[in-house]
Amino acid sequence: MALVLSYDDVRACITMADAIGAIETMCHEQAAGAALFADRVNLRLPNGWMRLMPGALIASGVFGYKEFHLTQVAGSQPPSAEVRYAFHLFDYRTGEPLATMDANFMTAIRTGATSGVAMKYMTRPEAAVLGIIGSGSEARSHLQAAAAVRGIKKAYVFSRSAERREQFARDMEQLTAIEVQPTGRIEDAIKDADILIVGTNTAGTGPALKGEQLASRSNQGLHVNSVGSTLPTQRELDPAVWTFADRIVVDSRRLLQESGDGIAATQAGAVSDAKVSELYEIVAGRAPGRAGRQESTLYKSIGTGLQDVAVASCIYRAALAKGLGRTMQPCQLPKVVEPN
Amino acid sequence: MALVLSYDDVRACITMADAIGAIETMCHEQAAGAALFADRVNLRLPNGWMRLMPGALIASGVFGYKEFHLTQVAGSQPPSAEVRYAFHLFDYRTGEPLATMDANFMTAIRTGATSGVAMKYMTRPEAAVLGIIGSGSEARSHLQAAAAVRGIKKAYVFSRSAERREQFARDMEQLTAIEVQPTGRIEDAIKDADILIVGTNTAGTGPALKGEQLASRSNQGLHVNSVGSTLPTQRELDPAVWTFADRIVVDSRRLLQESGDGIAATQAGAVSDAKVSELYEIVAGRAPGRAGRQESTLYKSIGTGLQDVAVASCIYRAALAKGLGRTMQPCQLPKVVEPN
Repeated sequence: MALVLSYDDVRACITMADAIGAIETMCHEQAAGAALFADRVNLRLPNGWMRLMPGALIASGVFGYKEFHLTQVAGSQPPSAEVRYAFHLFDYRTGEPLATMDANFMTAIRTGATSGVAMKYMTRPEAAVLGIIGSGSEARSHLQAAAAVRGIKKAYVFSRSAERREQFARDMEQLTAIEVQPTGRIEDAIKDADILIVGTNTAGTGPALKGEQLASRSNQGLHVNSVGSTLPTQRELDPAVWTFADRIVVDSRRLLQESGDGIAATQAGAVSDAKVSELYEIVAGRAPGRAGRQESTLYKSIGTGLQDVAVASCIYRAALAKGLGRTMQPCQLPKVVEPN
Repeated sequence: MALVLSYDDVRACITMADAIGAIETMCHEQAAGAALFADRVNLRLPNGWMRLMPGALIASGVFGYKEFHLTQVAGSQPPSAEVRYAFHLFDYRTGEPLATMDANFMTAIRTGATSGVAMKYMTRPEAAVLGIIGSGSEARSHLQAAAAVRGIKKAYVFSRSAERREQFARDMEQLTAIEVQPTGRIEDAIKDADILIVGTNTAGTGPALKGEQLASRSNQGLHVNSVGSTLPTQRELDPAVWTFADRIVVDSRRLLQESGDGIAATQAGAVSDAKVSELYEIVAGRAPGRAGRQESTLYKSIGTGLQDVAVASCIYRAALAKGLGRTMQPCQLPKVVEPN
């Protein structure tokens, strides 16, 4: 029997700390060569798209894929769209379906959790001040991820919308007991930050953070953590931010070709092989996340199918332990064949 | 609410004639530019693989994907593997999940049905004698497909295994009321055939049909219909069969790079652009399937995600009409976003 997990089930099955642990374990599996994935497939449609991202974690005994699609609602004014996420998990040894789950919450928490692992290995241990550029769901999950790995005392949040940044501050102070100060000046979010989260939706509006803005900072050893440019058309960092960083870590080198920021930095010659590591390499100790207190570091992510598999597997095990979800007879019956 | 359809539900919802109709409609949608698909993705695993094939038929109002995976059962001796197929169907206008179904039967019938459309447009109208090389599930579905579009009076089936060819003959005579004669000599299956079905599993053993064997035939106007080489490692026709054909139709030109037969024929210079059409082009009247009684024709297929979508949509509509399947609350909740 397979489990069907709703949005609420998923939410009840995972905390940020659990997700960070799952991503760290995934990094060790990657280092051991026990993590496999394929390029995602993207079906473009006149009114949206569908994407499929597969991956396997052999030592964890699971494989699966995320399916997500966006549909523009016909006739809506202003134009709006709906996105739906599902994750399908299978038993690696037997091929049996284990679970189908809503993957909306999972997608938000896994991006934050992967940054949490990056921050654990790349920020100074005493990092206490957070600057946040952006006030959406990524900004929220990243404040929680930072708080899970460092003793964050204060956060500054910049957003162009006064209403959104004030709402963010109210919500997050309540959720985390961290003092959150909204600001309409990006410099305020940058000035005293030990960690600068950049999580914006800047399609078409150009980079939200420019290298020259980092010159106004009061201290050294900044870690910039940027997650909002996952498509070629999206930008949030200019190439000078990459040049500013002494060390760059990515969740996947693929982003140098697929993220608008990665493409621009590569074209500007701001990326050298020697400067870039993948996240699993620093978790496994093959490369340092930070070589000294004064280093400036940059983490960039695009999201991978492996991150989804790792978090989905963690959610599935928790759901079993808690007795959450509906059970269903899978419709996929096995058929015996000759292997080829 | 979405429908969950088991193997038995699917089987009760579609006949070969229904499936042929669905594929013919799909061809017209392709010709109208209302059919979209993306390359399939293949995740290789140490003990098997998982594949994902997406497609959309806009005028039919659906999109979706097939997920199938093969798992070698640990420790089985002789080695055996299990394959599991599922199809997930969505509403094109709203993005809502419509159905999840076992796609094992669907996969077999869609390959046969696509060949049925090819035979309808490429064989001589009075074709009555069928030669079949192979005795597996493809051979079975193709006898039914041929019988659905032409007045087949007699079939010869060749297989190296006497037990398998005799079982095939008994089963198919009972199912179709066509006289089926088993033979251990491939020439007997070729000699009087109007239509020659080649559906073998010849990984590593070389082509089952050679061009020189076609010289022994008693009449002209043969249609060869080959469906058993869908991977680079699989072969069932030698390049001389491609040279023998006056006209070649493929379900997707992609097979010239992905099917072992397509690769070998291309490398041997046996394929010219002028000689090859895609199936939808002949259905839409943009190219002839057969230009005269004496022509020899060849149809080759590799399988496409669109064929799956077309047949899955047909199955879904029949299940609704018949009240078959279980209903379930989909776990994918919509989330409103800005379109990008």
